[in-house]
Amino acid sequence: MANASPEVKNHTTLALDIGGTWIRAATVTHDGRLLGARKQANPTTSSATEILALCAQLADEARAASPVPPLGLGVSTTGPVNPRTGVLYDPPNTPAGFSGLPLGQYLREQLDLAVVVDRDANAAALAEQRFGAVRGCTDFVYLTVSTGIGAAVIADGELLRGADGAAGELGHVVVAPDGPVCGCGRRGCLEAVAAGPAIGRAADRHAQANPGSGLAKLRDSLGGTPIRGHHVGVAALEGDPDARKILAAVGAAVVSSIVDIVNVFNPQRIVLGGGVAMAQPNWIEEANDALRQSALQPASETARVVPTELGDNGGLLGAALLLDQPDHGARHRRQE
Amino acid sequence: MANASPEVKNHTTLALDIGGTWIRAATVTHDGRLLGARKQANPTTSSATEILALCAQLADEARAASPVPPLGLGVSTTGPVNPRTGVLYDPPNTPAGFSGLPLGQYLREQLDLAVVVDRDANAAALAEQRFGAVRGCTDFVYLTVSTGIGAAVIADGELLRGADGAAGELGHVVVAPDGPVCGCGRRGCLEAVAAGPAIGRAADRHAQANPGSGLAKLRDSLGGTPIRGHHVGVAALEGDPDARKILAAVGAAVVSSIVDIVNVFNPQRIVLGGGVAMAQPNWIEEANDALRQSALQPASETARVVPTELGDNGGLLGAALLLDQPDHGARHRRQE
Repeated sequence: MANASPEVKNHTTLALDIGGTWIRAATVTHDGRLLGARKQANPTTSSATEILALCAQLADEARAASPVPPLGLGVSTTGPVNPRTGVLYDPPNTPAGFSGLPLGQYLREQLDLAVVVDRDANAAALAEQRFGAVRGCTDFVYLTVSTGIGAAVIADGELLRGADGAAGELGHVVVAPDGPVCGCGRRGCLEAVAAGPAIGRAADRHAQANPGSGLAKLRDSLGGTPIRGHHVGVAALEGDPDARKILAAVGAAVVSSIVDIVNVFNPQRIVLGGGVAMAQPNWIEEANDALRQSALQPASETARVVPTELGDNGGLLGAALLLDQPDHGARHRRQE
Repeated sequence: MANASPEVKNHTTLALDIGGTWIRAATVTHDGRLLGARKQANPTTSSATEILALCAQLADEARAASPVPPLGLGVSTTGPVNPRTGVLYDPPNTPAGFSGLPLGQYLREQLDLAVVVDRDANAAALAEQRFGAVRGCTDFVYLTVSTGIGAAVIADGELLRGADGAAGELGHVVVAPDGPVCGCGRRGCLEAVAAGPAIGRAADRHAQANPGSGLAKLRDSLGGTPIRGHHVGVAALEGDPDARKILAAVGAAVVSSIVDIVNVFNPQRIVLGGGVAMAQPNWIEEANDALRQSALQPASETARVVPTELGDNGGLLGAALLLDQPDHGARHRRQE
């Protein structure tokens, strides 16, 4: 940055984060502040057209808060996307109409800005590296346990992308071959065992099998809506032994996956985020103990698990950093 | 290579491959031919000093076959090593005296050559990329199922190294949480389920539980020496139903791990090698069917599993390529 002019140093970037629950937009300053932040529930039942229009509207509103014209728009999105083209692949948990959707091109035309689109986990990892829990780290894995399980790998300073930009799906590694069926169709993926809905379903199975239990009472009290992960978390905090057992088993699976990650990636750090993991802060210490004891040397001595510092803001802050990525940022600007 | 002088183009490199069973050495030509190849059983019961002396001797003999002074020595070794220094970490299946052994420095002094040391799986992956099954591929995973399970990942054209050069231990990912204890101490690693000795132990457990079975007869016929993977392979070929069942279960674990690998790395290719896998050629087709059906899109459409083309020569050929690696090759030469 030695030769950067003041204008470049004080640049802003428009950021959009399309999550499973919320769509958020903001102007992000070069030093990671959010201006004009907007947030609206993702109308997941609506058509792709409506969601696209909402995205463009929120981004446009957030742009009004920028003191200078933003350098471009970075978009962080749940589900798989081709980062080189901004076209969505068939996302497992969204309407089928999203498959092949040219999200990047649409927003470029609507907003007349350079646009880069990437997976939300990639964006969040970049944000933690620049502003959060792993500043300056060159080798780390970002793992988020939430409604789904997302992950991103930074190796030797670069995002692990794979042939199609779809690498990093650590939630779809089988950890329990006889476990529950996953949304992806396989049995016993980490996501099918440890994501929020999976925890709810485990509690539901337990309630069905044990009509007198506390979890059965919880189930009845919900009047037909499914038990969710946070219900189980609350029950465990209130001392329900079955809820505690379920969360302990989930924690063991997450911890074992983290040991696997240390053996596979030999990272300096693993950043653990997502609502489910943030509600179980003991997982951090348990994972650190387990990897010291069970991962291979020398990786076991180097790695350390740390909690996210940016939490829900990671995707939005990271979206703004996508335009700095050497691989696709440059490519999109050339297309302008 | 447009500006390469004839001498550089026709260079040779000395290569040493220190395996669990054999130590091999050769002069490798720039186009991948082996000259003056030497091979001797690894005296695994001997001291580190004796093994080092044998390595230096074999390399020196192989050097005599080189028509020009070799550019340096590349060493491919089983077990973890710091590729930047050539110092061995504590290898799981070799004498404890190897921990901290400065293999690179020793050979540099003995042979008066630039020396680069790396994991055998990394070397074999580079060899398959230059001379074998994945010429020109930028994103692939090399997986060898043999006495142990080794792996290397090439992502965006570069070896995945991790913070200490120890990344890629895909054999130490848990695939069967209730499975047999692994040499690394965890339960149910892929290596504890699918490597040759693990197959032998599974057959042994079956023989003990079923005294009248074909596997029990096989066990008795060995007079106290343990059943090994290749015995089970022969029994399966001869129609023994229990041996077939054991190998089918092992194949399913390997295939499931390959689907995991596709989700995690989004590779163009997976190269499957090693004695155990090469004896089960049906695993290639089974893995391709499974990943088409079960891996996430778009990775499932891109990936293809292919057999090794170089087999046992991969480590030796790849050792010679280590000196071309931008990261540590240059570093070692500067130390000269």
